[in-house]
Amino acid sequence: MNLTIDREILLENLNVISRGLPSKSPMPILTGIKLYATDTDLFLTSSNSDISVETDIADSSLTITEPGQTVVPGRFFIDIVRKINSQRINLFLSDDKLLIIKADRGEYKLHIMDPLDYPKMDFVDLENPLELEAEVLKEVIKETVFATASNEKKPILTGVNLKNSQGLVTATATDSFRLSQKTITIPEYKDFNITIPAKSLDEMAKAIDNYSGKVNLYFSNNKLLIQYKNVCFQTRLLDGNYPDTSRLIPSEFPITINFNKDELIDAVERVSLLSPRDKEKDKEITFSIIKLSIKKDRVIEISTTNASVGDAKEELIPTNIEASNPLAIGFSSRYLLEALRSFVSTEVSLNLSGEIRPFILRGDKDANLTQLILPVRMD
Amino acid sequence: MNLTIDREILLENLNVISRGLPSKSPMPILTGIKLYATDTDLFLTSSNSDISVETDIADSSLTITEPGQTVVPGRFFIDIVRKINSQRINLFLSDDKLLIIKADRGEYKLHIMDPLDYPKMDFVDLENPLELEAEVLKEVIKETVFATASNEKKPILTGVNLKNSQGLVTATATDSFRLSQKTITIPEYKDFNITIPAKSLDEMAKAIDNYSGKVNLYFSNNKLLIQYKNVCFQTRLLDGNYPDTSRLIPSEFPITINFNKDELIDAVERVSLLSPRDKEKDKEITFSIIKLSIKKDRVIEISTTNASVGDAKEELIPTNIEASNPLAIGFSSRYLLEALRSFVSTEVSLNLSGEIRPFILRGDKDANLTQLILPVRMD
Repeated sequence: MNLTIDREILLENLNVISRGLPSKSPMPILTGIKLYATDTDLFLTSSNSDISVETDIADSSLTITEPGQTVVPGRFFIDIVRKINSQRINLFLSDDKLLIIKADRGEYKLHIMDPLDYPKMDFVDLENPLELEAEVLKEVIKETVFATASNEKKPILTGVNLKNSQGLVTATATDSFRLSQKTITIPEYKDFNITIPAKSLDEMAKAIDNYSGKVNLYFSNNKLLIQYKNVCFQTRLLDGNYPDTSRLIPSEFPITINFNKDELIDAVERVSLLSPRDKEKDKEITFSIIKLSIKKDRVIEISTTNASVGDAKEELIPTNIEASNPLAIGFSSRYLLEALRSFVSTEVSLNLSGEIRPFILRGDKDANLTQLILPVRMD
Repeated sequence: MNLTIDREILLENLNVISRGLPSKSPMPILTGIKLYATDTDLFLTSSNSDISVETDIADSSLTITEPGQTVVPGRFFIDIVRKINSQRINLFLSDDKLLIIKADRGEYKLHIMDPLDYPKMDFVDLENPLELEAEVLKEVIKETVFATASNEKKPILTGVNLKNSQGLVTATATDSFRLSQKTITIPEYKDFNITIPAKSLDEMAKAIDNYSGKVNLYFSNNKLLIQYKNVCFQTRLLDGNYPDTSRLIPSEFPITINFNKDELIDAVERVSLLSPRDKEKDKEITFSIIKLSIKKDRVIEISTTNASVGDAKEELIPTNIEASNPLAIGFSSRYLLEALRSFVSTEVSLNLSGEIRPFILRGDKDANLTQLILPVRMD
């Protein structure tokens, strides 16, 4: 193998490939990146237990003088290419099992692994794609993935469920304490019902972060492949049936309160500074409980009490309120803040149906997005 | 106590006060900030085992309707003031041992501690200051503090030594493996020889970061106080005699190599990606050893060998070189990078006197700054 390529092109592809690269692996070969040069193309491949990524570089800056293949230490290779200043990079294999990286007056030699030991990637057949705009995919991920479960008690809840029923795709995430749901319409396509690991979606969102345009989705029984530009990004799916969440969402809301989103976020952030902290076991996630009350004169109060430090309360004037009864409801400020931040709308509505019933959030500019939060009982 | 003040003024002062606030303390009262309001001034005080900070606010935005004093939970108080959006803040004590913070429609109540339990700050007498420009003080700290010892084997080495001898002040830091030394001239002042804890200097640099102007230094046997604007920042000094480092610095350098500083930093950063890592016990500091060699045609090579990953080398063309003999010298890339980054000069010189003798760095625009590094023996 011997080839020369613009550093910028190689790095751009390595940044995508890095999404599939494990930092550690029970299979040492997977800490490597596979390079496969044909007469015309350079293929880069990475893989971990969840994700496989492959890019096919046929850039005009690529000159292959000798085809070949190898597997190089992934992190080191990426770090070196990232730090190199020169415009061109020359990569070639020496006789003594080294990949030589030459750039300006620098020369780097990396011990290589046997490409025959690298597992064959079992990519989904590229037939019958579902075509989506990358912006839509990014949006759906951002709006739902944060609500997945962060522990493995119910493994299926660590992913986002995507269900197509006659052209209406519903994306659902829940950790049993809150739920995020977004629907989008798609062109005619076979029905599907899959659950994608949250971590894969995080990496997918990073991979397509700088990309705008069409993305093709390919489905198999246990895998999802997205293809765009010169990239194939494949993730395993979670086994099992996703719970039916349709009954969770109340259908009637006697109380509706509209807020300026940023004002509500500010008030909740301030009040939650004083709210007692509860740490989820084995996770550095803190839940702090705050209370929302409808006061006289239709003023809303956000408050908290912390026995060891003190109390906090903020009054807010809603932009609109429809409430027949007074109400005080307690919930995690983190859940509320994460839900609020998923909206692009400047005005959001809280829709409540009782002090111990789930409440939902909607935004006037976020059609088809529902955020649901379960309250906690207050003393 | 009852007072009103502009949030911006209070926050600016709390940011300085936070430099002396411990996150934990064996004395719970010290996790508090002391507020002391006279008829005209609000004094804020914080203190930990090393540092005490006091600010005297007499800003025109301050209105005190009732003098008084209290001690409030420090981190909570700072966080709340930081998050508040309103221009004005009202602080007052309620009858039931609470500090009430009112801002717009928000109300925060913090449990207070007894100000009589707060230790009396024993500040150095404000007599006979040494006057320095804040910029000079920041520069001396930045150029030396990184070279202090990060472990407590020799406690005196965890500080920077400041020694005045007839108007020539020498600042010295060393961890036994490298040394940083800067000299400045000052007006006539009594001789002193003190060693200031590195952590105190880090906090001092942050406290004066946004300040330009004069700083007054006051010395006592075991304390140093700096005073500027409305701030008194006092630190304890380290006990013991600082070692005599004057013999460490070679006086003759048969080899001098001049580099463009940024080119050298880039090359060393790249090569050290592959250098073997040695972790200092109990610290997450990595030392990676690289080699500098004078090659034919006066080219300089920076290189490293890593048995498990590979090799790296970079060639550099020095801007000037005076060398009668070939030479190859090994040393920590981290020490070299930290030393190089302490210079403002675009050109730096490496001055060597042998493969196992300390070498020094100087910069054409950094008068009176010397960085010294001890080499390691190469196989």
